Amino acid sequence: MLPRMPHDIRALTFDIFGTVVDWYGSIAAEVTRIGLPTEGGRFALDWRAGYPPAMQEVRSGALPWTNIDGLHRRILDRILAARGIVLPEVEAAALNRIWHRLDPWPDSAAGLAQLKQRHVIATLSNGNLSLLVNLARHGGLPFDAVLSAELFNHYKPDPEVYLGAARLLDLQPAQVLMVAAHPSDLRAAAACGLRTAYVMRPLEKGPGGVPEASRPGEFDFTAASFHELARQLAG
Amino acid sequence: MLPRMPHDIRALTFDIFGTVVDWYGSIAAEVTRIGLPTEGGRFALDWRAGYPPAMQEVRSGALPWTNIDGLHRRILDRILAARGIVLPEVEAAALNRIWHRLDPWPDSAAGLAQLKQRHVIATLSNGNLSLLVNLARHGGLPFDAVLSAELFNHYKPDPEVYLGAARLLDLQPAQVLMVAAHPSDLRAAAACGLRTAYVMRPLEKGPGGVPEASRPGEFDFTAASFHELARQLAG
Repeated sequence: MLPRMPHDIRALTFDIFGTVVDWYGSIAAEVTRIGLPTEGGRFALDWRAGYPPAMQEVRSGALPWTNIDGLHRRILDRILAARGIVLPEVEAAALNRIWHRLDPWPDSAAGLAQLKQRHVIATLSNGNLSLLVNLARHGGLPFDAVLSAELFNHYKPDPEVYLGAARLLDLQPAQVLMVAAHPSDLRAAAACGLRTAYVMRPLEKGPGGVPEASRPGEFDFTAASFHELARQLAG
Repeated sequence: MLPRMPHDIRALTFDIFGTVVDWYGSIAAEVTRIGLPTEGGRFALDWRAGYPPAMQEVRSGALPWTNIDGLHRRILDRILAARGIVLPEVEAAALNRIWHRLDPWPDSAAGLAQLKQRHVIATLSNGNLSLLVNLARHGGLPFDAVLSAELFNHYKPDPEVYLGAARLLDLQPAQVLMVAAHPSDLRAAAACGLRTAYVMRPLEKGPGGVPEASRPGEFDFTAASFHELARQLAG
């Protein structure tokens, strides 16, 4: 798919969970590895499903600003309790850190290196900064900058995050391309004036997962991998 | 020199101007390259000398928050005027951007790659984030994260910068090692509880320059290069 209009894109900002790293597969594998008495894929889905309502609690003010490590831990405690699983504190804390060691998709590291040749590449995730640094080190992801919702005390899709990223990169919103596997993230970015690239990750929610719906042509770019996105940006 | 006590250092934060990149040599070369009718080394020194008082104007509230690009431009206009040099706006703006293309010291890129093997490495500079991203790309500097005074709306040596970096890295101050060629920067970091590494850059202010004074043994580490610092941290 060709971009709908000429563009002057200088920087690419990346959603991380699901777009760059495979949370479902990594968490399912960890649950198996540590011998938790529950089905790993379902556990991963339940953990992730607790995340939008937890952010909404922060957004509404019901919960003071809490970073993703803190939100992940609250959800973890709940889904463990729902299964009647009791873990020693040190093991629960270690399990919560799996979000710092998620494996990238097969094309992520090499695709980012390719995209970096012509553009600034930065994370733009709701993950806290230290988590994103650890993910980048774990996966060999060569980001130029680690931008996080934590820098703005707002979670995506709040506009403060997208506009704050453009400001820190010293760019106009239209010079920033938001890259995500989630149409809702891209729509919020577009509403702030950013350009959008939809990278399809059909396995994000496991083999039976259903991606968010989107309309053909809804985004400036649509690609099946970071390599394909690089080819489209070069063309 | 050996560290004075056992340490649990997890991350290294780097001063940039003078510690990682050679502002004096890069600016003097640029002044010559563009044919400015003035001595390049003196011009570089004057430009840099305007920087602490400009930051003090921000700190005191005399000037609203202004990033380093903005401060550099104010100083540039003044030192050009003092020399009776009139530049078209586009050329003055281009000259101001030399601060985004400063060359690293010969050991910087390889030394940072070595230090990165065992520790998180981040910038911690008064330079704005987009400037630091451009410096890292220009010099092939493999930072894990780009931290800037701009994220805290405070300039070093204000404590908010050092403590803010530790917070974003999710570390205790004593787990962070501030690396700088400037004793004043290191003393402010130590006052916040950070560990300190003095890396000597005797040519920072050119061949006749005199470094800030310091006492032997004043800092946790003292090294002549990033490679030597890596050896000390490993030992």
